Amino acid sequence: MKGLHNYNWGPKLKSNHQLLLETVEKRISKHSTVEAGKDDILIRVLYCGLDHTDLHQMKGELASSTTNYPLVPGHEVVGEVLELGSQVKKFSIGDVVGVGGIIGSCGGCNLCTSNMEQYCNQKIFPYNDIYKDGTPTLFYHVKIPEKLAPEQAAPLLCAGVTAYSPLKQFMNPGQIIKGGILGLGGVGHLGVIIAKAMGHHVTVISSSEKKKKEAMEHLHADAFLVSTDEAEMKRESNSLDYILDTVPAVHPLSSYLSLLKPEGKLIIVGAAPKPLQFLPTEIILGKKAISGSFIGSVTEMQELLNFWEEKGLTTMIEVVKMDYVNKAFERMERNDVRYRFVLDVAGSNLE
Amino acid sequence: MKGLHNYNWGPKLKSNHQLLLETVEKRISKHSTVEAGKDDILIRVLYCGLDHTDLHQMKGELASSTTNYPLVPGHEVVGEVLELGSQVKKFSIGDVVGVGGIIGSCGGCNLCTSNMEQYCNQKIFPYNDIYKDGTPTLFYHVKIPEKLAPEQAAPLLCAGVTAYSPLKQFMNPGQIIKGGILGLGGVGHLGVIIAKAMGHHVTVISSSEKKKKEAMEHLHADAFLVSTDEAEMKRESNSLDYILDTVPAVHPLSSYLSLLKPEGKLIIVGAAPKPLQFLPTEIILGKKAISGSFIGSVTEMQELLNFWEEKGLTTMIEVVKMDYVNKAFERMERNDVRYRFVLDVAGSNLE
Repeated sequence: MKGLHNYNWGPKLKSNHQLLLETVEKRISKHSTVEAGKDDILIRVLYCGLDHTDLHQMKGELASSTTNYPLVPGHEVVGEVLELGSQVKKFSIGDVVGVGGIIGSCGGCNLCTSNMEQYCNQKIFPYNDIYKDGTPTLFYHVKIPEKLAPEQAAPLLCAGVTAYSPLKQFMNPGQIIKGGILGLGGVGHLGVIIAKAMGHHVTVISSSEKKKKEAMEHLHADAFLVSTDEAEMKRESNSLDYILDTVPAVHPLSSYLSLLKPEGKLIIVGAAPKPLQFLPTEIILGKKAISGSFIGSVTEMQELLNFWEEKGLTTMIEVVKMDYVNKAFERMERNDVRYRFVLDVAGSNLE
Repeated sequence: MKGLHNYNWGPKLKSNHQLLLETVEKRISKHSTVEAGKDDILIRVLYCGLDHTDLHQMKGELASSTTNYPLVPGHEVVGEVLELGSQVKKFSIGDVVGVGGIIGSCGGCNLCTSNMEQYCNQKIFPYNDIYKDGTPTLFYHVKIPEKLAPEQAAPLLCAGVTAYSPLKQFMNPGQIIKGGILGLGGVGHLGVIIAKAMGHHVTVISSSEKKKKEAMEHLHADAFLVSTDEAEMKRESNSLDYILDTVPAVHPLSSYLSLLKPEGKLIIVGAAPKPLQFLPTEIILGKKAISGSFIGSVTEMQELLNFWEEKGLTTMIEVVKMDYVNKAFERMERNDVRYRFVLDVAGSNLE
């Protein structure tokens, strides 16, 4: 079976970040003997999105977890159900399903029982983590709506829900919400689409004019703000209800905090590997907050997939084959992608 | 008239931070000719609390505002009404009233009309600021409840409301709230008293064991946590709903963020003059927030004064005369005060 149950683009990273595709095949062949447990479903991977957290994890840059090689990255997985465990009632063979940023949690704590299982302290990541019995079981599948192409769905499973989960609090406010999106990558572009679909006035904030045309014409943002233009930044101070900060690298927060209205929130979802700084008065004087948000719950993943179908939204992706994966990561590091790579796993000749 | 309308402990700071009391007398004599406008009340200052923000402002250390000398510091003022403007209906001659951290705002914006005037962008500070007509008019008086001794009330007007305003959100939660108080100074000690009076389980967090006895026996905290004890800090990770961070100096946030439960808040009210740092994953993985809060509204000041009287609470203060002010600031810089100096302005022989 090809692309079964998991996929792998490299057991250890060479210093030049080249990934060893040959290992993918070994890993796949090793796992091709796995059978679904009574509560499990076995899937054939169709597509998988590429994410900056994969890159940080691959390079061992995450402060929150040590990377254990060999590594099987990927957490925006769309697949087709091949086998069902005897107890599975939610899915049928042939269903197209998705797997996102976490694949398991305790199921019993306050967080798990209130649709916040992504914050459970027994959460299990889809890779670089061990499930209770030591096997790489994939959990928490969500059903991909029929009208949604599977490659379209892949980026929603992590990048999309990462934007959707914190923006939900601004969903039906009874007034026009003014939102800012900082960073126009995988999460950022979906943030713009989601915020617009929620009816917000959306300003894309970027360090240069380069992405202005795209932001305004392709993503239909309402405004574009160049963060290095001090006069423009000053003019827009105290104007935004929130900024979704998707930048996965170190960046100064001061100028962005000044854009927020009183009680405004800077929502950080990009895991920069080094500390960020702010001056206390920048948050004290406006009762502002710097808050974090981690992917979303399984319920929110399903909500977003349905929202996407209902509103007829389109993910902007570049679909590539598995043999392009190294090049794709290289381009991602240079922000040279509009806006998310999705690996066509099933369509790559891996046998 | 002594101690009238304003008081002054120095027009310019000498490098040794000595304050020139002689100028107090000049300034008082200059202002003794001021008459109350039709909406004003003229007060005789009885007491005034000393605060770290005064110290930062006096030393020109605040990033958010430049200090203009000569300076008339003080923003926890309790006084007695001497004269009433013709339109004043809220106060009577002889009333004991308080003045806190801001003395004016536009009055018309969304923030002003929703009891958040302390965040109005036209707010006026009680000193180092200019009122519309250039005079040092004192605004926003609140009435001191009769049973409350005026020297007891002084620290509530800034330090107290600074703790009360953000803690109000945890007032009637329907469950036991676990709070942490970081820093046991003027704001911190009132934070413990207020949080206890709200029914919270209160942990005092300090860098050493030194204040344990005081925290547990005098302030009746429920627990004491030494932040340098890594094992103890680890044991208490993910245990607190909030931490009120009152430390007015640079300090690392990481270990405190780890103490918070998912969705927990680190509420910063101490204006450290230099940037604070955190790692994105420290807030992302627990949906945590670092939020700021600035004093409180006039409504909240009045609420707190009434709350204090109703609950029969006691401020822990050290009352000193005006000629002790330099020594008091020196001791404050060394944290050598339990827990707030209050100047006995009226009782100091200033004539």
